[in-house]
Amino acid sequence: MATNAEIPVQVSVGRRVLISADDVRGKAVHGRDGDKLGTVDKLILDECTGQVAYIILSTGGFLGLGQSYHPIPWAAFRYDEKRGGYAAAIDKRLLEGAPSFRPDSAPVFDEAYGRRVTDYYQLPPMDIA
Amino acid sequence: MATNAEIPVQVSVGRRVLISADDVRGKAVHGRDGDKLGTVDKLILDECTGQVAYIILSTGGFLGLGQSYHPIPWAAFRYDEKRGGYAAAIDKRLLEGAPSFRPDSAPVFDEAYGRRVTDYYQLPPMDIA
Repeated sequence: MATNAEIPVQVSVGRRVLISADDVRGKAVHGRDGDKLGTVDKLILDECTGQVAYIILSTGGFLGLGQSYHPIPWAAFRYDEKRGGYAAAIDKRLLEGAPSFRPDSAPVFDEAYGRRVTDYYQLPPMDIA
Repeated sequence: MATNAEIPVQVSVGRRVLISADDVRGKAVHGRDGDKLGTVDKLILDECTGQVAYIILSTGGFLGLGQSYHPIPWAAFRYDEKRGGYAAAIDKRLLEGAPSFRPDSAPVFDEAYGRRVTDYYQLPPMDIA
């Protein structure tokens, strides 16, 4: 498949910032207390609406738990212009007990799992289109 | 940076279909007359709202114009469940005169270029969050 390394990475349209989905990967995610929680590993989209539903946060092992992945509802995030990454309305302590998985044991991301994630963070599920 | 090949590619949550943004790449895009127009090369997101703003369509050279890329506003698409790809409210003829670029001459995707694209397709620009 063709790829195009030339498409500009990030552009400003008025006050909007457009970015290739590829380039969101690796962006820092900070918690509500300012601590770095990890980085964006993947974006999970609703392919009908084109809206990001979850960010898969990679904690990169620094919580002392080894490399792990935490699906977090999009509603928990806001873009932090100053830091050039995402701020999440959660902290490390909340993350430690949250649904997560290791690279070798990815869950089936079905309705029940999605509900478990949104319930854990006490956030509403994404609207159904 | 860590990657995780184990995250499931596509899951069904009720009637919603969630998909990793990575896995949208390469999906077929058909035109309003059913012809295949190309494939998804990239998704361009509004990083504040998490909403896809544009799909970069790769025409793969089969229009006789060589490999080229067409940014198309998200509003032109709907997900086509039957085909497992996107249907765009455009056709090859419209595409031939549309703003496009070659891998070696990517435009600066600024406000003026964005307006040129949305004006060409006579679609409203994405709402500003």
